[in-house]
Amino acid sequence: MHIEFAKGHGTRNDFVLFADPDNLYELTDAQVQFLCDRRGGIGADGILRVVRAELVPGHEQDDAHWFMDYRNADGSIAEMCGNGLRVFVRYLAEEGLVSGPQVAVSTRAGLRTGRFLPDGRIAVTMGAVHVGEDVVLRLGTDSWRARSVDVGNPHAVAVVSSVRTLTDLDLTHTPTWHPADAFPNGVNAEFVVRLAPGHLRLRVHERGVGETCSCGTGVVAAAAAMGDSDQYTVDVPGGTLEVDLRGEEAVLTGPAEVVARGTCTLPN
Amino acid sequence: MHIEFAKGHGTRNDFVLFADPDNLYELTDAQVQFLCDRRGGIGADGILRVVRAELVPGHEQDDAHWFMDYRNADGSIAEMCGNGLRVFVRYLAEEGLVSGPQVAVSTRAGLRTGRFLPDGRIAVTMGAVHVGEDVVLRLGTDSWRARSVDVGNPHAVAVVSSVRTLTDLDLTHTPTWHPADAFPNGVNAEFVVRLAPGHLRLRVHERGVGETCSCGTGVVAAAAAMGDSDQYTVDVPGGTLEVDLRGEEAVLTGPAEVVARGTCTLPN
Repeated sequence: MHIEFAKGHGTRNDFVLFADPDNLYELTDAQVQFLCDRRGGIGADGILRVVRAELVPGHEQDDAHWFMDYRNADGSIAEMCGNGLRVFVRYLAEEGLVSGPQVAVSTRAGLRTGRFLPDGRIAVTMGAVHVGEDVVLRLGTDSWRARSVDVGNPHAVAVVSSVRTLTDLDLTHTPTWHPADAFPNGVNAEFVVRLAPGHLRLRVHERGVGETCSCGTGVVAAAAAMGDSDQYTVDVPGGTLEVDLRGEEAVLTGPAEVVARGTCTLPN
Repeated sequence: MHIEFAKGHGTRNDFVLFADPDNLYELTDAQVQFLCDRRGGIGADGILRVVRAELVPGHEQDDAHWFMDYRNADGSIAEMCGNGLRVFVRYLAEEGLVSGPQVAVSTRAGLRTGRFLPDGRIAVTMGAVHVGEDVVLRLGTDSWRARSVDVGNPHAVAVVSSVRTLTDLDLTHTPTWHPADAFPNGVNAEFVVRLAPGHLRLRVHERGVGETCSCGTGVVAAAAAMGDSDQYTVDVPGGTLEVDLRGEEAVLTGPAEVVARGTCTLPN
């Protein structure tokens, strides 16, 4: 099976994209793993497949032409990915699959909108954000009070005391939390420093993955947890993102780039 | 600047390849780094550029049509790479740049030959191997007597006592050696277990890189250091290789695969 793919990234969260408008290529886990294999395949954090929404069960009535089928590198299905959505929207435009300054995208988490900004960045809607209870987040021998935030997936946001403390965190370890039943399906842990009003620096430990260069929902969760502003600039290891909390839905703005296009043969 | 590339690997040592027969695209360090960037670019351990040997200063008279311009991921020049040479030869054949069962390749380490085996693997000549003095190799609190071997680049080969010991080695640390002046430019360290006569298992710490899935010269060095056979099967984390020491030059045999082809735009 031969496919045409593209590779792109947003703040170094990277994806293999491919257009499958007629929904002919539902990938097996092994095929996803091959595409995401950084040495034996192409290499990416996940796969973004472009399918006509009307052909996706449960999304036939969505008010969007395209459905974003996002798969994690291990083949598992993911509901949403903020960085992935920007790259998806960039790819749609470069492929000529959409036109105009704004694009509706159907995702497993619901309808999302991407908007092309004049400066080249892309702004995407991220759905509603729910700030919950405080928990205790532990990493090694340290612990912090952390705010739980739901952005369609679960987050715990801890404010650490200094840039130095943030830099020195050993995120090769997996954080734990208390009470233990706060996150029955695990949690994404964000560690944040306030650099200035509305300006954060963040490192993230994604559940099941480890530390990553960037996490779109994590950045939105961190901004929502702060509560001292409704607009944030957030520096992540892979770049800089902006979060706007003024509307009903959070809006995440950042770069998105397609860097290569090609063909490859998938294993059966 | 727009190039057509391929991505391939041999025992999970992976490369971006591109054909530049007329020697028009000598890449800057930044361009190599972009191509090898696993998140912001394509991603590979190194770059293999195909150039007509007659156009490469110092190699005009080589008895080979093609020169292998190998660059490490940081942009630095490397003399030779055994896994890279197999992938290079595979790419030449798939691009229709060579025909016949055997291919001569000009490299910075001298002339090499690749041979296509009926089982799909590729055998490449690796030049002369020089076994030298014993040194002491240290890793953390452990130390071993290790044999120094020159395969165009320096190696130190230590035999460890069991598969369990090999598995437990912490190669996130960089080995050191004694006497300190044995390897003024650093050394590649191989840790080896004899599984059976002529059958080794190996892990390698490459200088300046860290642990890798496979190292062609390291596998040859390990075989040469053993001295109890002239043919070896060597299991590395990325797969299995064979070494034949019967001729004047060592011969390394293993898989090589091109997995994708594409185009990308290089930064200036």
